[in-house]
Amino acid sequence: MHKYRLFTPGPTPVPDEVLSVLSQPMIHHRYDEFQEIFKNINSKLSYLFQTETNVLTLTGSGTAAMEAIVANFTDKSNVLIVSAGKFGERWLHINKLYSNNTFVLEKEYGESVESNEILDFLKKNKEIDYLFLTHSETSTGAYTDIKEIAKSVSGFNSNIKIIVDGITAISAHEMRFDEWGIDCVATGSQKGLMLPPGLSFIAVSKRMWDIHNNKQSYYLNLKLAAENLKKNLTPFTPAVGLIVALQKALELIEREGIENVWARHEKLSRACREAVCCLGLELFAVKPSFALTSVKIPSKFSNVFDDFLRKFKAETGITLAAGHGELKGKIFRISHLGYYDEFDIITVISALEKFLYKNKCIKSLGAGTTAAMNVLFK
Amino acid sequence: MHKYRLFTPGPTPVPDEVLSVLSQPMIHHRYDEFQEIFKNINSKLSYLFQTETNVLTLTGSGTAAMEAIVANFTDKSNVLIVSAGKFGERWLHINKLYSNNTFVLEKEYGESVESNEILDFLKKNKEIDYLFLTHSETSTGAYTDIKEIAKSVSGFNSNIKIIVDGITAISAHEMRFDEWGIDCVATGSQKGLMLPPGLSFIAVSKRMWDIHNNKQSYYLNLKLAAENLKKNLTPFTPAVGLIVALQKALELIEREGIENVWARHEKLSRACREAVCCLGLELFAVKPSFALTSVKIPSKFSNVFDDFLRKFKAETGITLAAGHGELKGKIFRISHLGYYDEFDIITVISALEKFLYKNKCIKSLGAGTTAAMNVLFK
Repeated sequence: MHKYRLFTPGPTPVPDEVLSVLSQPMIHHRYDEFQEIFKNINSKLSYLFQTETNVLTLTGSGTAAMEAIVANFTDKSNVLIVSAGKFGERWLHINKLYSNNTFVLEKEYGESVESNEILDFLKKNKEIDYLFLTHSETSTGAYTDIKEIAKSVSGFNSNIKIIVDGITAISAHEMRFDEWGIDCVATGSQKGLMLPPGLSFIAVSKRMWDIHNNKQSYYLNLKLAAENLKKNLTPFTPAVGLIVALQKALELIEREGIENVWARHEKLSRACREAVCCLGLELFAVKPSFALTSVKIPSKFSNVFDDFLRKFKAETGITLAAGHGELKGKIFRISHLGYYDEFDIITVISALEKFLYKNKCIKSLGAGTTAAMNVLFK
Repeated sequence: MHKYRLFTPGPTPVPDEVLSVLSQPMIHHRYDEFQEIFKNINSKLSYLFQTETNVLTLTGSGTAAMEAIVANFTDKSNVLIVSAGKFGERWLHINKLYSNNTFVLEKEYGESVESNEILDFLKKNKEIDYLFLTHSETSTGAYTDIKEIAKSVSGFNSNIKIIVDGITAISAHEMRFDEWGIDCVATGSQKGLMLPPGLSFIAVSKRMWDIHNNKQSYYLNLKLAAENLKKNLTPFTPAVGLIVALQKALELIEREGIENVWARHEKLSRACREAVCCLGLELFAVKPSFALTSVKIPSKFSNVFDDFLRKFKAETGITLAAGHGELKGKIFRISHLGYYDEFDIITVISALEKFLYKNKCIKSLGAGTTAAMNVLFK
């Protein structure tokens, strides 16, 4: 017997106390009861993003939130997209669809952009109004230093709006929306928020509302969402069940303290990386995200999904994630985003050791788990 | 003590066996496990809409599905919108946003369009390519005879595409998508499907794919959804928890049989209307929907929400719905859409009797409940 364990970067595991809220009877979204919950949630979401402004809640996946930002706040604009993976490319595809004039700063998969590269680019292309970044590139497991980039870019030209895909970064990486001067950050419910998928969230800076120009979107009209939010309502029937459960999930984050949540993710990710390296495996991302660890597949396994992940699941009960697109056959990904503690890392590393040992990739047991413990318990 | 009881036309009550599925641990949407469930769901959704084609599932509210239809299948087209309430108006707003050339056949709130009126309009306006209808106008409680209209319109000009908002109609009213030659029908999860809000569904006729022309939408790209559906996948992370629960809800519908589900809604709605009339109240809709009963507020109550609904809830535990927009102060709405049986109608009618009696609107008890029983039990 093996317990069912999920180590994927979305959906991520949902705490039992949140799952139990999901089986409560439906309430109606136009009654006080809902408004009180939504009000409570909104102050907690502001805390999560470290902002004084209200964070908008949409019913839809993180991609809906990304599209909403482009649809509502850009209008045939000059945009620079930093792309080093599938989700950077998603910014590009959405911007092209909305007829923005797109510039691309492309990095190799697994790499991260540095602020001086962006500054060099901006110096050569003075017409750029928007900078689109990916805080944690889920497809490669690489992290981008948003704080440093925001500082450099606003020092260079404070009119450039900084837009961040924070979908797998929020709660894993420090995010101080107001202090850092970010203009938009999007995230999804099934990530660091420890909920099932179905909701997404957008923080919007004050100056963005002055340039709000919803071109064509009805369902993703953020002005409408913002106006309704003032009354603790949503313009369309929201995923009520997820919103009620969100209150509980945000309570857990608040109780732990957001700085502690960030620190936990940093520590768990460091332990996971150390352990993986001690098992003779190679990390994929140069600057790894705290949300997930991407690992090059040992040459022994010709097919990641069939040869590795499926068998790993059968032998351990643990679900890991494959690579995306061109990385499909090259990497596997271990998530530590959201509801994970130190013993979960011990579990997944010991499972990996077991699997590598049984497949004759390593000759003895204990190196990975010991390495993780040295990070976690000292 | 009063039990909590929801009689609103979305969210509607979720059966306990479906609620309990919602508290199951998350599964990953790229593994076989999910694909098997989604495959199973897709055949059941086809049964629900009475179609051989696959029904598309979106993560978003019913409005997202409405917008998806306009965004994907119309392109500066000549569209006729029949509007007699808030949701007819929503078709209009969305079509205008997408720069369609809109014609409107407007009826008074509470009325329903008849096929001869549509034919008259089409004869005078031969350029019309699309007809947008609302099967059950939730804001007024009125029903439109889609079967008869589809027959007349296709007899007149079979090139006209028939698009139906079936959001509160699916499972309450007969819908034979293929047989009737409908081109698109949309519905939402929190309606006749007995789930929490967060998913919406679209049936699309074969000929629509030949004119598919997604103008600008990324998240609502239905071609992408249809291509993924062939592999029992979704293009973006779906509301996995709701999809797993949907399987259970669709099992309940399949077990009862779709014709029986339609017949149940017809009977419950008839009982509710008879009872309401026997209590001296006046129905609002001329041709009432089987999903809900809209009732004019007795003149005694000056404010529907504060004077009537809130007090009714406090005294009975039952949540009813107010009117929408201009009907806010004029009507209240009793839902019998989805998970309701005959004794639920007895309950809500007896509660209404109690409330009217205590507020001195009626002088004796029993007339409404007896009327309901005469419909339900004979």
